Amino acid sequence: MSSFRLGLVGAGKIVRDQHLAAIQATPGLELVAAADPHTSLEGVPGYASLEAMLFGEPSLDAVAICTPTHLRHGLARQALEHGKAVLLEKPPGATLAEVEDLKALAEARDSVLFAAWHSRFAPAVPLARQWLSERRVTGIEIVWHEDVRVWHPGQTWLWEAGGMGVFDPGINALSIVTRLFDTAFFLKHARLEVPDNCQTPIAARLHLRDGTGVPLDADFDFRHEDPPRWEMAITTEEGRLELSGGGCRLVLDGEVAVDEPEREYPELYAHFHELLTTGRSDVDITPLRHVADAMMLGHRESVAPFS
Amino acid sequence: MSSFRLGLVGAGKIVRDQHLAAIQATPGLELVAAADPHTSLEGVPGYASLEAMLFGEPSLDAVAICTPTHLRHGLARQALEHGKAVLLEKPPGATLAEVEDLKALAEARDSVLFAAWHSRFAPAVPLARQWLSERRVTGIEIVWHEDVRVWHPGQTWLWEAGGMGVFDPGINALSIVTRLFDTAFFLKHARLEVPDNCQTPIAARLHLRDGTGVPLDADFDFRHEDPPRWEMAITTEEGRLELSGGGCRLVLDGEVAVDEPEREYPELYAHFHELLTTGRSDVDITPLRHVADAMMLGHRESVAPFS
Repeated sequence: MSSFRLGLVGAGKIVRDQHLAAIQATPGLELVAAADPHTSLEGVPGYASLEAMLFGEPSLDAVAICTPTHLRHGLARQALEHGKAVLLEKPPGATLAEVEDLKALAEARDSVLFAAWHSRFAPAVPLARQWLSERRVTGIEIVWHEDVRVWHPGQTWLWEAGGMGVFDPGINALSIVTRLFDTAFFLKHARLEVPDNCQTPIAARLHLRDGTGVPLDADFDFRHEDPPRWEMAITTEEGRLELSGGGCRLVLDGEVAVDEPEREYPELYAHFHELLTTGRSDVDITPLRHVADAMMLGHRESVAPFS
Repeated sequence: MSSFRLGLVGAGKIVRDQHLAAIQATPGLELVAAADPHTSLEGVPGYASLEAMLFGEPSLDAVAICTPTHLRHGLARQALEHGKAVLLEKPPGATLAEVEDLKALAEARDSVLFAAWHSRFAPAVPLARQWLSERRVTGIEIVWHEDVRVWHPGQTWLWEAGGMGVFDPGINALSIVTRLFDTAFFLKHARLEVPDNCQTPIAARLHLRDGTGVPLDADFDFRHEDPPRWEMAITTEEGRLELSGGGCRLVLDGEVAVDEPEREYPELYAHFHELLTTGRSDVDITPLRHVADAMMLGHRESVAPFS
């Protein structure tokens, strides 16, 4: 089997922590180059820009875009226009307009575009989805609490306009819950706690409902001491589901059904390989749309400064 | 020619100010009932709810939904599920999720759904669109200033979470400019001035660009003394366009090309009649998406309280 030739765009922390090992572990994917103006990766030809990489590696099949969010749209457009498949780290754009544009461009060109939501590839998500598909849901409660100082040291951009604040981890929960169900949820109320000296929320409570009135309540908080709580509990008429550890552990009616180590990025790249093989795209804007709806509809309250 | 039988849902100020006369002026539309729990319209059978109206007037072809925004989604769903065509006042929903859901439902049922952006029906918009289609645009500047005390007396909901503040008129400008061009624009920066005692902006400056870098700058302000300025100036390599009076007056290269009285709602209902006749929908989410992007990406600054 011949491999798909992949280039990385952006070679920062998430690439070193997750992408490199995951790509190496994926049969049928070969990392052939990386583009980053500031850094290079050992053992991989480096380019200062996507443009230089496209010129220097004309046989590239695909690029994975892992730059800061606000750069992704222009780079993804450039790659799609050169006929490359594109993987976008989460979130897939700084605005909804950017993601809709990329989705339309990929459709028009019949190119592969993958808006990757890594939390959807947590080990317990597939079984949770299947279990729920056979039951009548009555309520969903999400708790997504972590200590921002432990999990995002020095990431001051989180607090600037567009940085998303607690929605940076919260969107992971939203990406899981929107994968668990095919039905839509609608935001009714949101409360956003914004530190006096920041632009983005340090905590958020969202109240959504589906079309039949089933409540989905989400509680995101950055002020939680370690260990984190990345959990959701879903009640149904036929029993109760508990997903914890960010999707690593699944308890169904009190019985442990899944308890496995985290390996989201290898699964994510296996999915990308499948998309490349079948020529399909996977672009779900819903998690980012829920964040935008919450920022538009949410009631903001000032809380103590964060430093 | 037989008429389409129309019911109004919500019978408040905008209905009395605009919809009633416009419906009367539209050949092929017949107002047969209105549903509102608080008020009734002279000469038209009244119902306390949409449900009661659907039961009492089974031959209704279409409903126009003019209630407060947060009620529209549930009502529109109900009407579509009863096989009725639906017109939505602007904005078409409280959240993007609601509008996407209605769009998908109308498509699935092959029903007519019209997300009505009234400013798009201003008299100079069609000629402006045609003139621009033949030219290379180099820049767009929108000024949308009005005195909130004059144009929105007592509308305290504007200042509450979800009330949109200055985006309530600003979205009219966005609805025009997104009608003038087929190309997409992407928000790069936004500055939102929010009064200390309010949830929503009293002024906003948006900086967008299209895919080729053409700038679109918008300046929305609620603190402008009468008369209002509802204007945009568009420069092209082949001349300059000035649209003012909310789209009533068009000046092309210094020559007045259109200067007509406002008649947005009659044109809007003529378009709805055309949609009903042809069975097509017209649901453009773009203006609301730009607002959501601005609320997600915008830098907020506290300004003097508004009272």
